[in-house]
Amino acid sequence: MKSLHIVVIGGVASGPAAVAEARRTNADATITLFEKGPDISYSACEMPFLISGQINRVERLVRYTPEAFATKFSVDVRTHHEVESIDPTNRSITFRDLKTQKTAKISYDRLVLATGAKATVPNALQSAIKDLYVLRSLDDLRQIEKVIQKQTIRHAVVIGSGYVGLDSAWALKTRGLRVTLLSPSGMLPGALPPAMSQIIKAHLLSSGIGVRAERAVGIEKAGDGKIIAVLTAEGEKIGCDFVLVATGTAPGSELGLGGGLKIGSQGGVLVDDQMRTSAQGVWACGDCTERRELVFDASIRAPLSLNAFRSGRVAGRNAARLGHGRAMTISPLVHAATLALGALEIAHTGWTENEAKALGKEIVSATIQSRTASAMAENSPVHITLVAEKGSRRLIGGQIVGGTASAQRINVLTALIRAKGTVDDLYNVDFVYAPSLAPAQDPLFVAARTLQKSLG
Amino acid sequence: MKSLHIVVIGGVASGPAAVAEARRTNADATITLFEKGPDISYSACEMPFLISGQINRVERLVRYTPEAFATKFSVDVRTHHEVESIDPTNRSITFRDLKTQKTAKISYDRLVLATGAKATVPNALQSAIKDLYVLRSLDDLRQIEKVIQKQTIRHAVVIGSGYVGLDSAWALKTRGLRVTLLSPSGMLPGALPPAMSQIIKAHLLSSGIGVRAERAVGIEKAGDGKIIAVLTAEGEKIGCDFVLVATGTAPGSELGLGGGLKIGSQGGVLVDDQMRTSAQGVWACGDCTERRELVFDASIRAPLSLNAFRSGRVAGRNAARLGHGRAMTISPLVHAATLALGALEIAHTGWTENEAKALGKEIVSATIQSRTASAMAENSPVHITLVAEKGSRRLIGGQIVGGTASAQRINVLTALIRAKGTVDDLYNVDFVYAPSLAPAQDPLFVAARTLQKSLG
Repeated sequence: MKSLHIVVIGGVASGPAAVAEARRTNADATITLFEKGPDISYSACEMPFLISGQINRVERLVRYTPEAFATKFSVDVRTHHEVESIDPTNRSITFRDLKTQKTAKISYDRLVLATGAKATVPNALQSAIKDLYVLRSLDDLRQIEKVIQKQTIRHAVVIGSGYVGLDSAWALKTRGLRVTLLSPSGMLPGALPPAMSQIIKAHLLSSGIGVRAERAVGIEKAGDGKIIAVLTAEGEKIGCDFVLVATGTAPGSELGLGGGLKIGSQGGVLVDDQMRTSAQGVWACGDCTERRELVFDASIRAPLSLNAFRSGRVAGRNAARLGHGRAMTISPLVHAATLALGALEIAHTGWTENEAKALGKEIVSATIQSRTASAMAENSPVHITLVAEKGSRRLIGGQIVGGTASAQRINVLTALIRAKGTVDDLYNVDFVYAPSLAPAQDPLFVAARTLQKSLG
Repeated sequence: MKSLHIVVIGGVASGPAAVAEARRTNADATITLFEKGPDISYSACEMPFLISGQINRVERLVRYTPEAFATKFSVDVRTHHEVESIDPTNRSITFRDLKTQKTAKISYDRLVLATGAKATVPNALQSAIKDLYVLRSLDDLRQIEKVIQKQTIRHAVVIGSGYVGLDSAWALKTRGLRVTLLSPSGMLPGALPPAMSQIIKAHLLSSGIGVRAERAVGIEKAGDGKIIAVLTAEGEKIGCDFVLVATGTAPGSELGLGGGLKIGSQGGVLVDDQMRTSAQGVWACGDCTERRELVFDASIRAPLSLNAFRSGRVAGRNAARLGHGRAMTISPLVHAATLALGALEIAHTGWTENEAKALGKEIVSATIQSRTASAMAENSPVHITLVAEKGSRRLIGGQIVGGTASAQRINVLTALIRAKGTVDDLYNVDFVYAPSLAPAQDPLFVAARTLQKSLG
């Protein structure tokens, strides 16, 4: 009997997870992994450690070299191979070998799309695109590292103030560069409540990072073609010689779209709870997908490391199984993320008040300020906002900004949101207390009590 | 109409919480608070900060002086007043003014027992009891501080290796004293799995605290009556001049027992989910009580700060209400606690494998070792044990020992245990990830996956 041929497209995070799980599921399958870049299986989230100088070799970010991965999981790894189209009807793909520029078509039995997401660059900056930097791949990182090492940067401008923009700005500052962050909305990052944004802004400013609530509308270059300034909608000309664009990402769903797969409202390849796409024999996973969210059953993207791993596992398992046994399913998403800027931890889970109100929900929220530990121990401020549905008292989101161990508290909220818990369930949690680890009344407990009062 | 007379017995933590909530509930009530010691409303958990020298005034532990509390909540505060008996049938109590030694009887309409817990001293050490130290009250602390300040202590022995023994030993060591900890079971603390106990022991030893798996059976004194050694069951004579006993606590339930209240299997005053005792018109709260536990419906004590506050609120509210409106209820307990020994955090929630097996339950557990953050960031080891019921896969307990932010992870488990969640629910949590705050796969996620494999 001919063995199953599984093709996985995309080698950064979710793709390798799919391959590994497919191999565990099916020892006999033939597996081919396509990756257009030179690298597979690396930790994109840790790239700022190289920029900051905390590590000094790109290789430290690589979990498996293509060779090691190929050997470990008996998979044909084809780096520098870009898949140009998929044909779910005939179960084939067309790819280009980027070294030889030759194209070829091969057939598959099962296909897994793990094509990730790509950085988006605003239209106004497109004309300067080859002189701008983004931070998505190891190759992006190598280019940034090359220009930093030249030691010619006097002023770096980071455009965009989401988690990636903040993380990159912090890393550049840690490296010793002068950095200005442009935040068009004035919010850092946009998902958090305004009061928290102010705390983050104050932290950046006191750490030596310039912050301006301006939108970049153009790039000015010198006669020799070098960038000399960013132009803003407010009419400013911000002199600089390095520009990193972090204005967001878009799902890499072109292959899916071209192959006729259903695309969701967020632009991602739509998948169900088995990570199946709309086409027979095609699964998708990771940053290129969007799927059901737990609280409001909305369709959302979650371009996050753990989702890449977990969804890759499910796609790989289901693509490789031979019909016996149950399909593996994945639980609906709660969108939760965190970031550290030095000693300041930022985290959010679920929905913000504004997002939920935009969906027409009746919402009550409460914001508290507390401390991370007893006043007698080392401690720092922590700010928490809780968001609940008015009638059901159900917890639907939370945002936290604060010092040590603040971010870990977000996981408590996520666990409760998943359990469809109310603010009363949060109040009832037996929070642990030791003076150097928490106040006698944990900040989450205080927040729950405050929200209970608002809900009546 | 005569106003309601509410009597609260015990002023440390739960009693003041009951008074405050009673006053909020009923502006007209007459409230009397009895406390046999000189102090009320203080933070017993922070007493080790004075021993360690991190604070230097006992007053910093006091939230309200008797006078300030009396004014703030319009309550008659009687310190140095020991209640000698309660008579629920006739709704009266008899008390002694410890300054004048006069006794008197007064009647009440509603009674709240908040008599706390007391340190227990093994029979073998009773003969030396007035030369031994315990750490329960501010007066205990003042005595310890007095002897430390004399600077005559060459070697302090702490008998008992529960959280209080560990905490005290660490504080004495931080103060600069030579310290030996006697742990009869060899387990530190007894509730944790053996492998974690070894990690804690190694941490103590490398921090300069001696640890011996021996049981104290006697005290040797010099001719002048001063302690010169602890004698152990193993025949050792451990030279020392200061002995702190931390072998456990017992609920202060004598008043309740004398008044005919039902006492539970753990020796505490039995209360229901309204903090009612078995007698009409009598509520109880805090360390003197025992009540229903969430997982196995067992009757347990929870001598913990948050339980004192929360149960005090419920007892105070219900004792003060006048029949209209619903009674306030309290949720069943999950027993969770934490302790920091310098940089090492210890925490547990719910049941250990051995405890659950002793109840005849079929249990599966898994233990993992991970790191608190990415290998590229500052990180330290973290060890997690998860305990689940075999058939239902329900999570019933967890234990954690590790570095920064390890303890906060226990609250995630507690929230899930409360929600009657399974190990699969834990696997599904959208754990946040940033390299300096957690590994890409959070230790709790790794533990859940490992336990899933064990459960099949």
